Amino acid sequence: MQLLKDRIVRDGKVRSGNVLKVDSFLNHQLDIELFGESGKEFKRRFASQEITKILTIEASGIGIACIAAQYFQVPVVFAKKTQTKNIAGDVYTGKVESFTHGRVYDIIVSKDFLKPEDRILLIDDFLANGAALLGLIKLVKDAGATLVGAGIVIEKGFQEGGRLVRESGVRVESLAIIDSMSEDTGIVFRE
Amino acid sequence: MQLLKDRIVRDGKVRSGNVLKVDSFLNHQLDIELFGESGKEFKRRFASQEITKILTIEASGIGIACIAAQYFQVPVVFAKKTQTKNIAGDVYTGKVESFTHGRVYDIIVSKDFLKPEDRILLIDDFLANGAALLGLIKLVKDAGATLVGAGIVIEKGFQEGGRLVRESGVRVESLAIIDSMSEDTGIVFRE
Repeated sequence: MQLLKDRIVRDGKVRSGNVLKVDSFLNHQLDIELFGESGKEFKRRFASQEITKILTIEASGIGIACIAAQYFQVPVVFAKKTQTKNIAGDVYTGKVESFTHGRVYDIIVSKDFLKPEDRILLIDDFLANGAALLGLIKLVKDAGATLVGAGIVIEKGFQEGGRLVRESGVRVESLAIIDSMSEDTGIVFRE
Repeated sequence: MQLLKDRIVRDGKVRSGNVLKVDSFLNHQLDIELFGESGKEFKRRFASQEITKILTIEASGIGIACIAAQYFQVPVVFAKKTQTKNIAGDVYTGKVESFTHGRVYDIIVSKDFLKPEDRILLIDDFLANGAALLGLIKLVKDAGATLVGAGIVIEKGFQEGGRLVRESGVRVESLAIIDSMSEDTGIVFRE
């Protein structure tokens, strides 16, 4: 999506350790107009698919998932991150290793909100090593629901997440895929 | 807002310890259509006010804040919860005691996204003891920004948060105020 790529080039900041700071529009301050265009584009790409629910993960996936959900006219469910040792109640659980924070946490979704008859679209702001997305995929599988695909705002194409998830047979649509980036040479997008 | 009150009566579950479970539409599964109506109502109530930004707090405030922001045509900033001891960089910080989890955490917002010229509307899903809202109010004050008011989806009117915040001079608009609730007698709304 050209609008998004332009925005990444203009306002994104490449930092050492393969960090791309996009907190001025994507994951701390949220540009709702850009989210609207992103939501429309997800709908265009998955227009032929029946979708009953969007699943995302707190916190920074929630905003884009909610705006996108308006175009699909479906509810959003967000998986909660928890470090609680004893998880109570009827929930599906998974484990996610955080690239940013270097620790493992559990993610949970109530069994009330993921059903075998659901057709799920995953939405998240970032795809890097794929840990969060693979965690969400496990929740969908555990629920016996159908996974329609995943819509990602920014994919770091030079990390393994996109390949891992696509090779597992899941359709991934990323609005911008970064093939390389550095503080010196800038950001190169996949064509 | 009648639509919301009807929904709370229909799908809300009163639990012991003054817990109102509304996770089927407000804070785990999110009813985006209801969020749209709530956003419109916030806009109607604050229509005469100039607002430059909506501030909320992760995680469950983000969805309603993003949907509401479309009607105000402003960006959303969400305060991040952190248990990191050393908070790096240029951030405004506050402390919030969680009613639900019984612990204190820090909240932070980058100084890049709260400016003295900003006119801030706070949005959150719940107002109970007021800890989160008072934490957000401190961030706005620390930034020297103008606080226009707070839009809340559900206020527990029998807890002290609403009174504390209103007595501090902040305009609070809650779409549903619960004056009492119990498993036996159900939910009573303020007129």
